[in-house]
Amino acid sequence: MSDFAHIRHKPPAALERPRELVIACAPFRSHVNLSRIVRTAGCCGVTRVVACGRPKLDPEIARNAADVVRLETHRTLSPALRDLRSAGYRLVGLEQTTGSVCLYDYRFTRRTALVVGNERQGLEEDVLALLDDAVEIPVYGMPYSYNVSSATDMALYEYCRQFPTG
Amino acid sequence: MSDFAHIRHKPPAALERPRELVIACAPFRSHVNLSRIVRTAGCCGVTRVVACGRPKLDPEIARNAADVVRLETHRTLSPALRDLRSAGYRLVGLEQTTGSVCLYDYRFTRRTALVVGNERQGLEEDVLALLDDAVEIPVYGMPYSYNVSSATDMALYEYCRQFPTG
Repeated sequence: MSDFAHIRHKPPAALERPRELVIACAPFRSHVNLSRIVRTAGCCGVTRVVACGRPKLDPEIARNAADVVRLETHRTLSPALRDLRSAGYRLVGLEQTTGSVCLYDYRFTRRTALVVGNERQGLEEDVLALLDDAVEIPVYGMPYSYNVSSATDMALYEYCRQFPTG
Repeated sequence: MSDFAHIRHKPPAALERPRELVIACAPFRSHVNLSRIVRTAGCCGVTRVVACGRPKLDPEIARNAADVVRLETHRTLSPALRDLRSAGYRLVGLEQTTGSVCLYDYRFTRRTALVVGNERQGLEEDVLALLDDAVEIPVYGMPYSYNVSSATDMALYEYCRQFPTG
Protein backbone atom coordinates (compact mmCIF):
# COMPACT_ATOMS: atom_id res chain seq x y z
CA MET A 1 0.00 0.00 0.00
CA SER A 2 1.41 3.34 -1.03
CA ASP A 3 1.79 6.22 1.42
CA PHE A 4 0.61 8.49 -1.35
CA ALA A 5 -2.90 8.42 -2.72
CA HIS A 6 -3.65 10.89 -5.46
CA ILE A 7 -6.05 13.68 -4.43
CA ARG A 8 -8.10 14.86 -7.36
CA HIS A 9 -9.59 18.34 -7.36
CA LYS A 10 -8.16 19.25 -3.99
CA PRO A 11 -9.85 22.45 -2.78
CA PRO A 12 -7.60 25.51 -2.98
CA ALA A 13 -5.63 26.79 0.01
CA ALA A 14 -7.40 29.65 1.79
CA LEU A 15 -6.08 33.19 1.56
CA GLU A 16 -6.52 35.28 4.69
CA ARG A 17 -6.56 38.44 2.60
CA PRO A 18 -6.81 39.09 -1.11
CA ARG A 19 -3.55 38.97 -3.00
CA GLU A 20 -2.14 42.42 -3.63
CA LEU A 21 0.08 41.27 -6.47
CA VAL A 22 -0.64 42.52 -9.96
CA ILE A 23 1.15 41.21 -13.03
CA ALA A 24 1.90 43.86 -15.66
CA CYS A 25 2.95 42.54 -19.05
CA ALA A 26 4.63 44.37 -21.90
CA PRO A 27 3.18 43.64 -25.33
CA PHE A 28 3.95 39.98 -26.00
CA ARG A 29 4.57 38.22 -29.28
CA SER A 30 2.61 35.22 -28.16
CA HIS A 31 -0.92 34.78 -26.85
CA VAL A 32 0.30 31.44 -25.52
CA ASN A 33 2.64 33.08 -23.04
CA LEU A 34 -0.01 35.52 -21.83
CA SER A 35 -2.53 32.70 -21.50
CA ARG A 36 -0.06 30.63 -19.50
CA ILE A 37 0.65 33.54 -17.18
CA VAL A 38 -3.07 34.08 -16.62
CA ARG A 39 -3.52 30.42 -15.74
CA THR A 40 -0.72 30.50 -13.19
CA ALA A 41 -2.04 33.82 -11.86
CA GLY A 42 -5.45 32.22 -11.32
CA CYS A 43 -3.90 29.30 -9.46
CA CYS A 44 -1.96 31.74 -7.26
CA GLY A 45 -5.06 33.74 -6.36
CA VAL A 46 -3.87 36.77 -8.33
CA THR A 47 -6.92 38.49 -9.76
CA ARG A 48 -5.48 41.28 -11.91
CA VAL A 49 -3.24 41.13 -14.97
CA VAL A 50 -2.38 44.20 -17.03
CA ALA A 51 -1.67 43.46 -20.69
CA CYS A 52 -0.74 45.65 -23.63
CA GLY A 53 -1.65 45.73 -27.26
CA ARG A 54 -4.43 43.39 -28.31
CA PRO A 55 -4.19 40.56 -25.86
CA LYS A 56 -6.14 37.41 -26.51
CA LEU A 57 -6.47 34.43 -24.23
CA ASP A 58 -6.40 30.87 -25.45
CA PRO A 59 -9.14 29.20 -23.36
CA GLU A 60 -7.46 25.81 -23.70
CA ILE A 61 -4.42 27.22 -21.91
CA ALA A 62 -5.84 29.82 -19.52
CA ARG A 63 -8.68 27.47 -18.52
CA ASN A 64 -11.09 28.96 -16.04
CA ALA A 65 -8.48 31.41 -14.81
CA ALA A 66 -9.95 33.50 -17.63
CA ASP A 67 -13.13 33.81 -15.53
CA VAL A 68 -11.47 34.90 -12.29
CA VAL A 69 -8.51 36.99 -13.46
CA ARG A 70 -9.38 40.49 -14.64
CA LEU A 71 -7.38 41.27 -17.78
CA GLU A 72 -6.89 45.02 -18.16
CA THR A 73 -5.82 46.15 -21.56
CA HIS A 74 -3.65 49.20 -22.22
CA ARG A 75 -2.05 50.51 -25.35
CA THR A 76 1.35 50.83 -23.72
CA LEU A 77 2.77 49.81 -20.38
CA SER A 78 4.24 53.02 -18.91
CA PRO A 79 1.00 54.90 -18.18
CA ALA A 80 -0.45 51.80 -16.55
CA LEU A 81 2.65 51.51 -14.38
CA ARG A 82 2.34 55.13 -13.32
CA ASP A 83 -1.25 54.43 -12.28
CA LEU A 84 -0.15 51.39 -10.31
CA ARG A 85 2.54 53.42 -8.57
CA SER A 86 -0.05 56.04 -7.63
CA ALA A 87 -2.13 53.26 -6.16
CA GLY A 88 0.75 52.27 -3.92
CA TYR A 89 2.23 49.39 -5.85
CA ARG A 90 5.97 48.78 -5.85
CA LEU A 91 7.10 48.28 -9.45
CA VAL A 92 9.33 45.23 -9.70
CA GLY A 93 10.73 44.25 -13.08
CA LEU A 94 11.61 40.66 -13.87
CA GLU A 95 14.69 41.23 -15.97
CA GLN A 96 18.44 40.76 -16.16
CA THR A 97 19.74 44.29 -15.69
CA THR A 98 22.80 45.98 -14.25
CA GLY A 99 20.86 46.63 -11.03
CA SER A 100 18.95 43.40 -10.61
CA VAL A 101 18.74 41.53 -7.32
CA CYS A 102 18.72 37.75 -7.36
CA LEU A 103 15.18 36.49 -6.76
CA TYR A 104 16.56 34.10 -4.11
CA ASP A 105 17.50 37.11 -1.98
CA TYR A 106 14.67 39.48 -2.80
CA ARG A 107 12.01 40.28 -0.21
CA PHE A 108 8.78 41.24 -1.91
CA THR A 109 6.57 44.04 -0.72
CA ARG A 110 3.04 42.73 -0.45
CA ARG A 111 1.62 45.40 -2.74
CA THR A 112 3.69 44.74 -5.85
CA ALA A 113 3.27 45.01 -9.58
CA LEU A 114 5.45 42.35 -11.17
CA VAL A 115 6.50 43.81 -14.52
CA VAL A 116 7.23 41.30 -17.25
CA GLY A 117 8.87 42.07 -20.59
CA ASN A 118 8.47 41.01 -24.17
CA GLU A 119 9.85 37.57 -25.14
CA ARG A 120 12.61 39.05 -27.30
CA GLN A 121 13.14 42.66 -26.22
CA GLY A 122 12.53 42.25 -22.52
CA LEU A 123 11.60 45.46 -20.74
CA GLU A 124 12.12 48.66 -22.69
CA GLU A 125 14.01 51.74 -21.55
CA ASP A 126 10.97 53.78 -20.56
CA VAL A 127 9.73 50.92 -18.40
CA LEU A 128 13.11 50.20 -16.83
CA ALA A 129 13.28 53.88 -15.86
CA LEU A 130 10.06 53.51 -13.86
CA LEU A 131 11.03 50.45 -11.83
CA ASP A 132 11.61 50.49 -8.10
CA ASP A 133 13.48 47.19 -8.24
CA ALA A 134 14.56 44.64 -10.77
CA VAL A 135 14.86 40.96 -9.93
CA GLU A 136 16.47 38.17 -11.91
CA ILE A 137 16.50 34.41 -11.71
CA PRO A 138 19.90 32.74 -12.05
CA VAL A 139 20.39 30.84 -15.28
CA TYR A 140 22.93 28.02 -15.10
CA GLY A 141 23.05 26.71 -18.63
CA MET A 142 21.62 26.82 -22.11
CA PRO A 143 19.58 28.59 -23.29
CA TYR A 144 20.68 31.78 -21.57
CA SER A 145 17.22 32.86 -20.54
CA TYR A 146 14.00 31.37 -19.30
CA ASN A 147 10.85 31.52 -21.32
CA VAL A 148 8.89 34.55 -20.10
CA SER A 149 6.02 32.52 -18.68
CA SER A 150 8.43 30.14 -16.94
CA ALA A 151 10.22 33.07 -15.32
CA THR A 152 6.84 34.45 -14.28
CA ASP A 153 5.85 31.06 -12.83
CA MET A 154 8.98 31.15 -10.70
CA ALA A 155 8.47 34.73 -9.53
CA LEU A 156 4.83 33.99 -8.64
CA TYR A 157 5.93 30.94 -6.72
CA GLU A 158 8.50 33.01 -4.79
CA TYR A 159 5.93 35.69 -4.00
CA CYS A 160 3.41 33.11 -2.76
CA ARG A 161 6.14 31.40 -0.74
CA GLN A 162 6.77 34.71 1.01
CA PHE A 163 3.07 35.43 1.46
CA PRO A 164 1.58 31.96 1.85
CA THR A 165 -1.76 33.27 3.08
CA GLY A 166 -2.03 36.44 1.02
CA MET B 1 19.14 57.87 -16.28
CA SER B 2 17.71 54.55 -15.15
CA ASP B 3 19.39 52.41 -12.49
CA PHE B 4 18.55 49.43 -14.63
CA ALA B 5 20.20 48.80 -17.97
CA HIS B 6 19.13 45.64 -19.72
CA ILE B 7 21.87 43.00 -19.95
CA ARG B 8 21.48 40.91 -23.06
CA HIS B 9 22.93 37.43 -23.22
CA LYS B 10 24.25 37.51 -19.68
CA PRO B 11 26.62 34.57 -19.18
CA PRO B 12 25.14 31.82 -17.01
CA ALA B 13 25.87 31.53 -13.29
CA ALA B 14 28.64 29.05 -12.54
CA LEU B 15 27.88 25.72 -10.91
CA GLU B 16 30.54 24.44 -8.52
CA ARG B 17 29.45 20.88 -9.19
CA PRO B 18 27.19 19.29 -11.76
CA ARG B 19 23.51 19.25 -10.91
CA GLU B 20 22.41 15.91 -9.52
CA LEU B 21 18.76 16.55 -10.27
CA VAL B 22 17.04 14.39 -12.85
CA ILE B 23 13.52 15.05 -14.10
CA ALA B 24 11.47 11.93 -14.73
CA CYS B 25 8.28 12.44 -16.71
CA ALA B 26 5.32 10.14 -17.09
CA PRO B 27 3.97 9.82 -20.63
CA PHE B 28 2.60 13.25 -21.49
CA ARG B 29 -0.25 14.20 -23.77
CA SER B 30 1.63 17.17 -25.10
CA HIS B 31 5.04 17.58 -26.70
CA VAL B 32 4.74 21.23 -25.77
CA ASN B 33 4.87 20.52 -22.06
CA LEU B 34 7.86 18.21 -22.39
CA SER B 35 9.64 20.75 -24.58
CA ARG B 36 8.98 23.50 -22.05
CA ILE B 37 10.33 21.35 -19.22
CA VAL B 38 13.47 20.59 -21.22
CA ARG B 39 14.03 24.29 -21.85
CA THR B 40 13.72 25.14 -18.16
CA ALA B 41 15.92 22.14 -17.30
CA GLY B 42 18.61 23.48 -19.64
CA CYS B 43 18.43 26.91 -18.04
CA CYS B 44 18.76 25.32 -14.59
CA GLY B 45 21.82 23.30 -15.56
CA VAL B 46 19.93 20.01 -15.35
CA THR B 47 21.34 17.67 -17.97
CA ARG B 48 19.13 14.61 -17.78
CA VAL B 49 15.42 14.20 -18.42
CA VAL B 50 13.70 10.84 -18.48
CA ALA B 51 10.64 10.69 -20.72
CA CYS B 52 8.20 7.94 -21.58
CA GLY B 53 6.41 6.85 -24.67
CA ARG B 54 7.49 8.54 -27.88
CA PRO B 55 8.68 11.92 -26.74
CA LYS B 56 9.37 14.57 -29.32
CA LEU B 57 10.85 17.98 -28.69
CA ASP B 58 9.62 21.12 -30.40
CA PRO B 59 12.86 22.96 -31.22
CA GLU B 60 11.07 26.33 -31.17
CA ILE B 61 10.20 25.72 -27.52
CA ALA B 62 13.11 23.67 -26.18
CA ARG B 63 15.63 25.90 -27.99
CA ASN B 64 19.22 24.82 -27.54
CA ALA B 65 18.37 23.06 -24.31
CA ALA B 66 17.76 20.19 -26.72
CA ASP B 67 21.54 20.10 -27.34
CA VAL B 68 22.61 20.03 -23.70
CA VAL B 69 19.87 18.03 -21.98
CA ARG B 70 20.05 14.29 -22.49
CA LEU B 71 16.54 12.94 -23.12
CA GLU B 72 16.31 9.30 -22.10
CA THR B 73 13.34 7.45 -23.46
CA HIS B 74 11.63 4.58 -21.69
CA ARG B 75 8.49 2.69 -22.45
CA THR B 76 7.14 3.15 -18.93
CA LEU B 77 8.27 5.11 -15.91
CA SER B 78 8.49 2.53 -13.09
CA PRO B 79 11.54 0.57 -14.32
CA ALA B 80 13.38 3.85 -14.95
CA LEU B 81 12.58 4.97 -11.41
CA ARG B 82 13.90 1.71 -9.97
CA ASP B 83 17.14 2.28 -11.87
CA LEU B 84 17.36 5.82 -10.52
CA ARG B 85 16.79 4.56 -6.98
CA SER B 86 19.57 2.01 -7.43
CA ALA B 87 21.80 4.87 -8.54
CA GLY B 88 21.12 6.68 -5.28
CA TYR B 89 18.42 9.12 -6.34
CA ARG B 90 15.64 10.07 -3.97
CA LEU B 91 12.33 9.75 -5.81
CA VAL B 92 10.23 12.86 -5.25
CA GLY B 93 6.83 13.10 -6.89
CA LEU B 94 5.29 16.44 -7.74
CA GLU B 95 1.68 15.66 -6.94
CA GLN B 96 -1.23 16.45 -4.67
CA THR B 97 -1.50 13.29 -2.57
CA THR B 98 -2.59 12.32 0.92
CA GLY B 99 1.06 12.32 2.01
CA SER B 100 2.42 15.36 0.17
CA VAL B 101 4.62 17.95 1.84
CA CYS B 102 4.22 21.59 0.85
CA LEU B 103 7.07 22.59 -1.46
CA TYR B 104 7.63 25.70 0.70
CA ASP B 105 8.70 23.44 3.57
CA TYR B 106 10.45 20.67 1.70
CA ARG B 107 14.23 20.26 1.88
CA PHE B 108 15.50 18.60 -1.24
CA THR B 109 18.20 15.98 -1.19
CA ARG B 110 20.84 16.95 -3.74
CA ARG B 111 20.57 13.66 -5.62
CA THR B 112 16.90 13.73 -6.52
CA ALA B 113 14.70 12.50 -9.31
CA LEU B 114 11.76 14.87 -9.61
CA VAL B 115 8.88 12.73 -10.85
CA VAL B 116 6.24 14.54 -12.87
CA GLY B 117 2.90 13.11 -13.89
CA ASN B 118 0.66 13.19 -16.90
CA GLU B 119 -1.35 16.39 -17.51
CA ARG B 120 -4.67 14.70 -16.79
CA GLN B 121 -4.00 11.57 -14.75
CA GLY B 122 -1.07 12.81 -12.70
CA LEU B 123 1.13 10.08 -11.29
CA GLU B 124 -0.25 6.57 -11.50
CA GLU B 125 -0.55 4.09 -8.65
CA ASP B 126 2.53 2.05 -9.52
CA VAL B 127 4.62 5.23 -9.58
CA LEU B 128 3.14 6.65 -6.36
CA ALA B 129 4.04 3.37 -4.66
CA LEU B 130 7.72 3.90 -5.54
CA LEU B 131 8.08 7.46 -4.25
CA ASP B 132 10.19 8.41 -1.26
CA ASP B 133 8.39 11.75 -0.94
CA ALA B 134 5.63 13.69 -2.59
CA VAL B 135 5.61 17.48 -2.74
CA GLU B 136 2.82 19.81 -3.72
CA ILE B 137 2.55 23.48 -4.50
CA PRO B 138 -0.32 25.35 -2.85
CA VAL B 139 -3.06 26.42 -5.23
CA TYR B 140 -5.07 29.42 -4.11
CA GLY B 141 -7.67 29.82 -6.80
CA MET B 142 -8.96 28.68 -10.14
CA PRO B 143 -8.09 26.49 -11.90
CA TYR B 144 -7.43 23.95 -9.17
CA SER B 145 -4.09 22.83 -10.53
CA TYR B 146 -1.04 24.26 -12.22
CA ASN B 147 -0.11 23.28 -15.70
CA VAL B 148 2.45 20.47 -15.43
CA SER B 149 5.28 22.50 -16.90
CA SER B 150 4.47 25.48 -14.66
CA ALA B 151 4.56 23.24 -11.59
CA THR B 152 7.86 21.81 -12.80
CA ASP B 153 9.22 25.36 -13.32
CA MET B 154 8.40 26.11 -9.70
CA ALA B 155 9.92 22.91 -8.35
CA LEU B 156 13.10 23.47 -10.39
CA TYR B 157 13.28 27.02 -9.08
CA GLU B 158 12.94 25.78 -5.49
CA TYR B 159 15.61 23.12 -6.00
CA CYS B 160 18.03 25.66 -7.50
CA ARG B 161 17.25 28.10 -4.69
CA GLN B 162 18.28 25.42 -2.21
CA PHE B 163 21.38 24.46 -4.22
CA PRO B 164 22.38 27.75 -5.84
CA THR B 165 25.77 26.45 -6.92
CA GLY B 166 24.92 22.85 -7.72
